[in-house]
Amino acid sequence: MKNSNELIPLKIIASGTALPEHKVYSSDLDLKLNKPTGFVQKHSGIEYRYHSDYEASPAKLAVEALHNTLQTYQISPDSIDLLISASAIPIQALPYSAAHILKESQLKAGTACFDINASCVSFVSALDIAAGLLATKQYRRIAIVSAEMASRGIDWSHQESSLIFGDGAACMIVERGDGKSGIVTYKHETYPEGLELCEIRAGGTRKNLRTGMEDKDFLFQMQGRPLFKLTASLIEGFTERVLASADLKMSDIDTVIPHQASHLGLEHIRKRLNIKDERFVNIYRYRGNQVAASIPTALHEAIMTDRYYGRDYVMLLGTAAGLSLSEMILKP
Amino acid sequence: MKNSNELIPLKIIASGTALPEHKVYSSDLDLKLNKPTGFVQKHSGIEYRYHSDYEASPAKLAVEALHNTLQTYQISPDSIDLLISASAIPIQALPYSAAHILKESQLKAGTACFDINASCVSFVSALDIAAGLLATKQYRRIAIVSAEMASRGIDWSHQESSLIFGDGAACMIVERGDGKSGIVTYKHETYPEGLELCEIRAGGTRKNLRTGMEDKDFLFQMQGRPLFKLTASLIEGFTERVLASADLKMSDIDTVIPHQASHLGLEHIRKRLNIKDERFVNIYRYRGNQVAASIPTALHEAIMTDRYYGRDYVMLLGTAAGLSLSEMILKP
Repeated sequence: MKNSNELIPLKIIASGTALPEHKVYSSDLDLKLNKPTGFVQKHSGIEYRYHSDYEASPAKLAVEALHNTLQTYQISPDSIDLLISASAIPIQALPYSAAHILKESQLKAGTACFDINASCVSFVSALDIAAGLLATKQYRRIAIVSAEMASRGIDWSHQESSLIFGDGAACMIVERGDGKSGIVTYKHETYPEGLELCEIRAGGTRKNLRTGMEDKDFLFQMQGRPLFKLTASLIEGFTERVLASADLKMSDIDTVIPHQASHLGLEHIRKRLNIKDERFVNIYRYRGNQVAASIPTALHEAIMTDRYYGRDYVMLLGTAAGLSLSEMILKP
Repeated sequence: MKNSNELIPLKIIASGTALPEHKVYSSDLDLKLNKPTGFVQKHSGIEYRYHSDYEASPAKLAVEALHNTLQTYQISPDSIDLLISASAIPIQALPYSAAHILKESQLKAGTACFDINASCVSFVSALDIAAGLLATKQYRRIAIVSAEMASRGIDWSHQESSLIFGDGAACMIVERGDGKSGIVTYKHETYPEGLELCEIRAGGTRKNLRTGMEDKDFLFQMQGRPLFKLTASLIEGFTERVLASADLKMSDIDTVIPHQASHLGLEHIRKRLNIKDERFVNIYRYRGNQVAASIPTALHEAIMTDRYYGRDYVMLLGTAAGLSLSEMILKP
């Protein structure tokens, strides 16, 4: 195993989440989609997830997670010197989401901020970037917020993807810490042969008013079977490279925090990578796939249920539209 | 002045740009907009800028800048271990632009990548993030690409903003270097009271198929006068804080590379901050406002015209939709 001298220092000092008010049971979707009772729960593996009103502000949901975190841990908003928005779907094409979040927040005007986007694994990339910026001593205390309202992009005519998404937001506050906690190893790999397997085509320079667009371009499009095949062909080798880089085995990892992609996807990855059920944080049944908010929401759950602090190694793990693979091993 | 021990190491080892094929003279826009000859040049200060066909691929324009850079400097695509897309406008809502750029490029499948967005100053944020990731030794050679096709978001009914935008892309390759070059100081401040003064409202969770949207939501909306007033009220104090943090005066800066926002904006900032004309890189007349591609394009111009390497201090400077202010002082 790597010794702690090789850690990239990083300490999570606070975490929190937020959910929109509408709890949507799978039985509600049975009615909406004209399916027999139990159909949606059986096919999605979800009991309930949360969906926002179409009038609700995505920036306000992000800020709710941020303020919940600051209040619970009694952290002054003025002490945050960088805000990172780490979501897959932007609030609008211009300006960037972090400015919207800053506007709704109690953070001081003038706070530095930017967006980072690596689709569903944006939060993991943001943690890595934060560790770099803390290493160069430019910032002391960084807030990372992931907020998603995927319900607005659901194509209700596509059975597979319409059942799985839930909205939500999560926030982590990080500092450099004392050097005893941090990033043991991290890898992100993108295989763009899978780019079209998971996308929302409108929203930017590709499909718009000038280039032409249709309704479908605004909705999440997924090709489940080829996506599963491509992910399955890559995940084992990728995980072996990650573990080998830290001279660790999967059995050394106390807690694995996966992206909550789908119930079959989660179970496939758990078995494929030989992760014991009790070490695998699965909140999918009560949240669904919250896109980039899934990993920090599950990490917050791990913190709240005593599966983070005091452990030797915790792994964040996700596959994401791109197709991207991301794994980070943290020493909490 | 700060001594070089305090530098955050960063070395630009290569740079390049790309332009779409259509050179649009201001006289062409006189005809398009039914204005007398000379009107557009007089009001915009631009002789020509470049606009893409609506069929052209934004990812391919980004890749052209990347490949031009790699080829000119004989850098192997396989040696790039991180690709950062640093643009204001995404290619589409999902997945992130870096995956699209990777797909069209000669970089190897599996290359790490992410997007960073801080509207028009995205490139400066990306440089700072790259320096952090090089400091933690996770990557050795990073490619940063900014590519914009602002022409697709022009509201031709709005005179002020319709005249100024040009498309283009730029790329910089950075390494840690020997520690003698790097970031002397850097600040980014966002004042979201100016958020609505400069925006494209569609593209994400705020305005879409579900929430309702209209054609205007896809086009760049700017309120020139209040934007100018807010920027003017902030820029001097901000610049003083930046210079003071490095114990430098503006007269110590050999080359200033501003965001090419508008001809009046450029001249206002130059005079307000007491920057000598010969030290101020102004390519606006032949490029227009290329959004996030402006600063790296002007930096490339400075490199090509011997105003970067061999100088003591170079400043990157920009104001951006958000409203964000960004300044970085580099030791080349």
